[in-house]
Amino acid sequence: MPFVNIKITDEGVTKEQKQALIKGATQLLVDVLGKNPATTIVLIDEVNTDNWGIGFDQVTELRKAK
Amino acid sequence: MPFVNIKITDEGVTKEQKQALIKGATQLLVDVLGKNPATTIVLIDEVNTDNWGIGFDQVTELRKAK
Amino acid sequence: MPFVNIKITDEGVTKEQKQALIKGATQLLVDVLGKNPATTIVLIDEVNTDNWGIGFDQVTELRKAK
Amino acid sequence: MPFVNIKITDEGVTKEQKQALIKGATQLLVDVLGKNPATTIVLIDEVNTDNWGIGFDQVTELRKAK
Amino acid sequence: MPFVNIKITDEGVTKEQKQALIKGATQLLVDVLGKNPATTIVLIDEVNTDNWGIGFDQVTELRKAK
Amino acid sequence: MPFVNIKITDEGVTKEQKQALIKGATQLLVDVLGKNPATTIVLIDEVNTDNWGIGFDQVTELRKAK
Repeated sequence: MPFVNIKITDEGVTKEQKQALIKGATQLLVDVLGKNPATTIVLIDEVNTDNWGIGFDQVTELRKAK
Repeated sequence: MPFVNIKITDEGVTKEQKQALIKGATQLLVDVLGKNPATTIVLIDEVNTDNWGIGFDQVTELRKAK
Repeated sequence: MPFVNIKITDEGVTKEQKQALIKGATQLLVDVLGKNPATTIVLIDEVNTDNWGIGFDQVTELRKAK
Repeated sequence: MPFVNIKITDEGVTKEQKQALIKGATQLLVDVLGKNPATTIVLIDEVNTDNWGIGFDQVTELRKAK
Repeated sequence: MPFVNIKITDEGVTKEQKQALIKGATQLLVDVLGKNPATTIVLIDEVNTDNWGIGFDQVTELRKAK
Repeated sequence: MPFVNIKITDEGVTKEQKQALIKGATQLLVDVLGKNPATTIVLIDEVNTDNWGIGFDQVTELRKAK
């Protein structure tokens, strides 16, 4: 019954990586709290780097500065 | 003043269905708690089936397995 | 599989009212989109009126002004 | 370390406006609570006007009615 | 920079279990996507069983029925 | 109509500080996007330091280490 929401930047995350996040997060809830995986929901939000800020700056600009 | 967020998979939900969700959720808050509909916000998030997991699996794969 | 999050102020909502919100929101997803109620999750967040603002003001103050 | 999520309708918000929201929200946390901006995250969600309801109606329809 | 939000029922989760959820979720983002753990935030929401519904029912009632 | 959610640790935030966050966030949406403050909602979530992790660790432990 747990609900996990993972927010990441939309920088080419593959379908396989998303599957790995879903499996890993579900297993974590099973291992730590004994939750029922059948009703454990994992939701991945991919956010445009223009819309994600950290330390005053857009990630888009931080990536350029690297 | 209530805020309702409805998260569903993005599988062809029509504009009319979204309108029905908005009307229904707003009416629910009016009926049960007497809330003011004028400031009741309903937000619908449509999530790609690759990004939604339940029971360890992506909904994309669950749909195929059916 | 839908996920509904209802955010309201914590002003004496009863257990019965919460049950009515859960039933109503679940039924809405069944009626409008044909979703499976068995995996439909409804989460109610009760927020302190000091922590809820609308129109620049805390709800705590808006309630006093009435 | 704070996390700020700003949800707005997707009506032509520019990259510069997003940057201004990120800077302003981060500065607010610094000014009011003395938070460390380096780990302050601001996330902007742009929501389709069909998916945003207020006062029973979709924003799409409210915009037309104006 | 990822943000993970884990929502669970408030049924006696210990501080050690919360630590395990934080460590595990952070490691998952490092392993799958190579994210920087230093800015990876994990937030755990514990929700009262009266406020969590699944399959039309409050978890409070589901626990009694078991 | 915007919705702003500010998540911070629950470390003695005063009512006045919350009011300042609400005013500041609302004004930001007015200044940058010309939004109507009357329907701008700001919600502050105060999260227990046991439930907030960054860089693998609970904030509770990070505070002790300082």
